[in-house]
Amino acid sequence: MKAGKVVLALDGMGGDHAPDVVVNGADIARERYPDTSYLLFGDPEKLKPLVDKRKGLAQAVEIVPAADAVSADDKPSFALRRRRQSSMWLACQAAAEGRADTVVSAGNTGALLAISMFAMRMLDGAHRPALASFLPTTRGETVMLDLGANLECDADNLAEFAVMGSVFAQVLLGLDAPKVGLLNVGSEELKGHEELRQAAGWLRRPGGPVNFYGFVEGNDIGSGVVDVVVTDGFTGNVLLKGLETAYALVRPPNPGEVPPRAAILLGVGGTVVICHGAASGDDIAAGIALAAGLHRRAAVPAIADLIQPQPAAHDDPRGGS
Amino acid sequence: MKAGKVVLALDGMGGDHAPDVVVNGADIARERYPDTSYLLFGDPEKLKPLVDKRKGLAQAVEIVPAADAVSADDKPSFALRRRRQSSMWLACQAAAEGRADTVVSAGNTGALLAISMFAMRMLDGAHRPALASFLPTTRGETVMLDLGANLECDADNLAEFAVMGSVFAQVLLGLDAPKVGLLNVGSEELKGHEELRQAAGWLRRPGGPVNFYGFVEGNDIGSGVVDVVVTDGFTGNVLLKGLETAYALVRPPNPGEVPPRAAILLGVGGTVVICHGAASGDDIAAGIALAAGLHRRAAVPAIADLIQPQPAAHDDPRGGS
Repeated sequence: MKAGKVVLALDGMGGDHAPDVVVNGADIARERYPDTSYLLFGDPEKLKPLVDKRKGLAQAVEIVPAADAVSADDKPSFALRRRRQSSMWLACQAAAEGRADTVVSAGNTGALLAISMFAMRMLDGAHRPALASFLPTTRGETVMLDLGANLECDADNLAEFAVMGSVFAQVLLGLDAPKVGLLNVGSEELKGHEELRQAAGWLRRPGGPVNFYGFVEGNDIGSGVVDVVVTDGFTGNVLLKGLETAYALVRPPNPGEVPPRAAILLGVGGTVVICHGAASGDDIAAGIALAAGLHRRAAVPAIADLIQPQPAAHDDPRGGS
Repeated sequence: MKAGKVVLALDGMGGDHAPDVVVNGADIARERYPDTSYLLFGDPEKLKPLVDKRKGLAQAVEIVPAADAVSADDKPSFALRRRRQSSMWLACQAAAEGRADTVVSAGNTGALLAISMFAMRMLDGAHRPALASFLPTTRGETVMLDLGANLECDADNLAEFAVMGSVFAQVLLGLDAPKVGLLNVGSEELKGHEELRQAAGWLRRPGGPVNFYGFVEGNDIGSGVVDVVVTDGFTGNVLLKGLETAYALVRPPNPGEVPPRAAILLGVGGTVVICHGAASGDDIAAGIALAAGLHRRAAVPAIADLIQPQPAAHDDPRGGS
């Protein structure tokens, strides 16, 4: 592989339509982004014919045999312990050991979370990983997290996501001081769950780590009131999926106006992009482009540099409780 | 007022653009639905000129003086105790005492919840009120609740909302056995919060009170997989508001394709419709049409008949925990 190319570790067996769409995605991406090359993990008997039938793809792809695959039904703990020879595990390991720059998978999200946390470790100062992505707004794009990594979040988690999301928006959207909002049912300080009020109290402190806007409501997302929307993984997941069909309902999908079908795992010590389980070849290619862009802009090192171990929300002298 | 007319108690002072839009809404609704008449609660000095300048409206509207108004910032407990002479309180009282058939307000949601629960009491078998509305789907309409009345819900609450939502869909959508889904981050039985799994375990029992489909995800809402989507009020509120701007973002609002800007309060002993705080005259008119329709179809008596005191989810012999 040539120097300067981004090397992507692809989970060839992950996703509802794997391995076909993964190979298809690599083929689309390779043509669009010639500065990429691929380690394709999975069953060579299935992968090789798919690669070979696409002219020129074999030059960009190295098939790495994986004897096992994580299934959509695997519990994360099972996949972590018992799927060490899976395409997902081996792809994460390749990135952890520096043989690849990034990982792209459309497989089981929970398993990918567990495996990447284990294989790549968490960044110093990050306690929980969060899934982040972009949503289209009337003013451009907004980063939203967590999209499903943590179903229940306390104030510390939310505050930490605010910091990671802010750094991510700085790096990816090129903003100096992204406006960060906490998703709530109202903008008044007294609204919402206790953990939201605690996190807000901590983020609102003068000299705090982010440019905190305050609470935002569901309707503020699409209008782009803030650059980063922070919420728990349950709400974020349901909202992202709900928006996905809302866009599809009113108009046939048009890239750039619909939520992307890929998310970035923030907080782990590597660049991991997870594509929608039902990803198409184009979706995989978009995930590859995102992963390559993150690597080229050194997003993870930037997050590692900027994220500082955060004092717990309950250490806030102004108190939230 | 003529026999057979639906009498609507309107909170003339509730909403961001009150009283103008409330009077405007009554005027639009009166022309569309001649079988309606109105008790308009509020400050006569403000209301009378607005009514008088609309030709013929005065014949359909009786202005009922209210010396006070609930403000958007009032805490529910404050409004309940200290705003007894407000337009909102007096409107609810009129419905509770049978002088009006329904209440329509675009005012402070929390206050309207508290006041209507107090003035009209809860239905036997209902422990918590829920806000319900319709969302457009590719197959028609889906009922969704709770949209913000209860930020945190336990398994019992969710199961009760499932029953109320099912009855509501029977009455309003004319379905014999509406399919009811619980909103979650995945369709597998093991996914999600403990309270969701408990509620699902109870609803899934053979001979249970609803036609339970199982868990649904955010993307299932727009595709109309179920007729009733049950969730907690935090998630429902954020999702409804998020969808609202998503529809607006991709295409200028087109009635029938955007979520309605009115919700019904289920569980209380009267017909209460709450309009969006930023409601326009057309939105108020739509709320009036909804309230009148609910009254004509005897939705609340149907819910009262069909909702039975539910065993607690933790009484489920199959257990959820």
